[in-house]
Amino acid sequence: MSKHITIVGAGLVGSLLACYLSKRGHRVSVFERRSDMRVAGYVGGRSINLALSHRGWKALKKIGLDKEVEPITIPMKGRVIHDLKGNTSFFPYGTADQAIYSVSRGDLNKIMVEKADSFPQVDFHFDERCAHIDFSANRVVFENTATKQQQTLESDLIFGADGAYSQVRYQMQLTPDFNIHQQHEPYGYKELHIPPGPAGEHLIEKNALHIWPRGNFMMIALPNMDGSFTVTLFNSFSGENSFAQLNDEKSVNDFFQNFFPDAVSLMPNISKHFFENPTSSLVTIRCYPWHHKNTCLIGDAAHAIVPFYGQGMNCGFEDVNELDDLMNALGEDWNAVLDTFQKQRKPNGDAILDLALHNYIEMRDLSGREDFQLRTKIEKKIAESFPDKFMTHYSMVTFSDLSYAEAKHRGEKQNELLDELMRLNDIATIWESALVLQKAEKWINENLS
Amino acid sequence: MSKHITIVGAGLVGSLLACYLSKRGHRVSVFERRSDMRVAGYVGGRSINLALSHRGWKALKKIGLDKEVEPITIPMKGRVIHDLKGNTSFFPYGTADQAIYSVSRGDLNKIMVEKADSFPQVDFHFDERCAHIDFSANRVVFENTATKQQQTLESDLIFGADGAYSQVRYQMQLTPDFNIHQQHEPYGYKELHIPPGPAGEHLIEKNALHIWPRGNFMMIALPNMDGSFTVTLFNSFSGENSFAQLNDEKSVNDFFQNFFPDAVSLMPNISKHFFENPTSSLVTIRCYPWHHKNTCLIGDAAHAIVPFYGQGMNCGFEDVNELDDLMNALGEDWNAVLDTFQKQRKPNGDAILDLALHNYIEMRDLSGREDFQLRTKIEKKIAESFPDKFMTHYSMVTFSDLSYAEAKHRGEKQNELLDELMRLNDIATIWESALVLQKAEKWINENLS
Repeated sequence: MSKHITIVGAGLVGSLLACYLSKRGHRVSVFERRSDMRVAGYVGGRSINLALSHRGWKALKKIGLDKEVEPITIPMKGRVIHDLKGNTSFFPYGTADQAIYSVSRGDLNKIMVEKADSFPQVDFHFDERCAHIDFSANRVVFENTATKQQQTLESDLIFGADGAYSQVRYQMQLTPDFNIHQQHEPYGYKELHIPPGPAGEHLIEKNALHIWPRGNFMMIALPNMDGSFTVTLFNSFSGENSFAQLNDEKSVNDFFQNFFPDAVSLMPNISKHFFENPTSSLVTIRCYPWHHKNTCLIGDAAHAIVPFYGQGMNCGFEDVNELDDLMNALGEDWNAVLDTFQKQRKPNGDAILDLALHNYIEMRDLSGREDFQLRTKIEKKIAESFPDKFMTHYSMVTFSDLSYAEAKHRGEKQNELLDELMRLNDIATIWESALVLQKAEKWINENLS
Repeated sequence: MSKHITIVGAGLVGSLLACYLSKRGHRVSVFERRSDMRVAGYVGGRSINLALSHRGWKALKKIGLDKEVEPITIPMKGRVIHDLKGNTSFFPYGTADQAIYSVSRGDLNKIMVEKADSFPQVDFHFDERCAHIDFSANRVVFENTATKQQQTLESDLIFGADGAYSQVRYQMQLTPDFNIHQQHEPYGYKELHIPPGPAGEHLIEKNALHIWPRGNFMMIALPNMDGSFTVTLFNSFSGENSFAQLNDEKSVNDFFQNFFPDAVSLMPNISKHFFENPTSSLVTIRCYPWHHKNTCLIGDAAHAIVPFYGQGMNCGFEDVNELDDLMNALGEDWNAVLDTFQKQRKPNGDAILDLALHNYIEMRDLSGREDFQLRTKIEKKIAESFPDKFMTHYSMVTFSDLSYAEAKHRGEKQNELLDELMRLNDIATIWESALVLQKAEKWINENLS
């Protein structure tokens, strides 16, 4: 039976959810606090490049959006690691045909809102802030950000797809027994820019994600369609070489000259951009329950994570995909759908959050270390040698349908093998030998089933 | 210079703070969401007996409130442990002249509001809900709970003393970089009652806190002035013998007959009361920062804890006491006062939260075990033998001025000694011997300085 469903938030997850629900025959009203990004453009200055990978593509494909999105993405087949001297090494993410895809958040969002808006049962309302929710009556009060005019909407079901600082969640926090852990990390980020070359070409390798790992901080770059790169410096707020110390032109210039000499030559007016762009913080959200009566959180609103595994959007899209599966399986019993949804997805939200936090250490520090680079090669070698039994941890998260919780668990388990192999004498010279692969096979047969 | 200060919340901490601030010469406006408890009475049914101890008394004394509060308190000199057969054993909390003091939250609150209201510079406003705060302008919007009329108050300083579900904190959560961990425990509580005897006498030992430790759950009883006891059952929400299973008259009667045979004979109509009273949950709050511009959280609003160490109110009163000390030391530099306050108190709020969570295990389980009872006796014996060098962990928290963080740290350290002594052969028979005390003295000299 057709229902009327309210979605708070017209971001990536909200607009995808609108497509899915309208395709199921429901009437969908989407309310967004910001202005229509198709008219107003997308607010930049905060690293807005994303990496679409398997889980995200899968959810787009199910609704036929993959074809429309594909042209605005750039495949990144692996990491290019830049050392202090500007030497680079390439580490593929997976097999030759696997990649993650750089995409502009704003461009992707526009396509998705267009798509959702093309369904006759979907209506969009911009500049409308969620001011209050009456959970018992399924009523949401929206306030127009310009006119301050309020309107109350009653519907059958309400989704909060309104991101890390979700207003729906703030309302839900006032209901009994709601648990939340909202934590800002001691590090943050600043967006910078590598412009295109004179002919619009990419000035560093186009089909890769670039990392300048420097121990306690790092810089990364993702390719854009116009030949430029969106660059992001991640750094602590305090301590040596932190944002706190980058407080004048000289300290900024020295910092970039010292730590990113190959990049700084591609980034004109680095100190000007540095001070023009904000330093943004990173927040994580763990909460539970995700639904109260007929209102449910989804995406970042339910489980905001840090960006270091490139999975925030992919996880949110997978939320939508799994919710759709549950609607197929459980039909119109909303309470069962929402209850199963939160029980099934919560451990996965927790797992990808932990993995993403850990991946900052991997990216900023380990990825630049020789022993870790060797370890990565060994892991890949084992995966290639036993493709039916062993997947690299990165592949489980990025290229598979394994739940995040299962991927985390298996990754931890596989670390035991890799720890063992790394302790072998002369591992740096014998890592491709039959001996190492035999040890791996024995361990796999004993430990993975 | 005299300032105008707004306090949100007229509970125990809010009314004490009003006394302190008005005594400093400030004008204080106190707004409370509930009705005036002096007129409307205090809403019962939720275990409202508290245990005043050293930190609380100290803060009351500084403002001259101890004399007015003393007559409504009952000293509890130790724990009376009730076993399954109804046998009891007494374990003193400290020395012969030390006690914690049972007091009714409602009666205490009334006295404190009366006191605060007696200062000419203090005005109280009941039935006024904090609806919004403009932190930059120091403005709070209050909404009358009956008329829905709103008023906006601008003042120099704003305190949120509005408890675990603080509205001030919810507003602060919307400011940048606010961290919060709000967690409900998997167990809760239900208030019950032992009425007075025919002549108004206490039917079990008056000057003690009674515990029926049963492993995964427990019942406790605190004496009231009228000869009755406020009884509280703490239990898990799910699992064997949990609240979930106590769902009809028979299961409740059987449960109390099986586990609390000596108490149930003193609790007429146990199943009736059981179903009349709500089952309440327990929430903990960790958050930071505590102040944003000129608005500051204090008491439970900043650090709500579970009740198992009897320190929630005492900690809140100590907050007020330390804030007062900081105002003496730092004068009118509010930002320095609030910033030092949060930095100084936050580790102590965290410490007492951890200690209180752990004490549930001690009360419901360990306190009923022979080995733990022996350990408690040994700890006390050492403290009596080396009074200048060694304090029991309970005494550090309850009867001393040591910071909670220091008390926690020292308690953990001292556990090493107690673990060591408990591993001695025949410790149950030799625990009072010179050998044991010599070992203790040696450890103390080597480890505590």
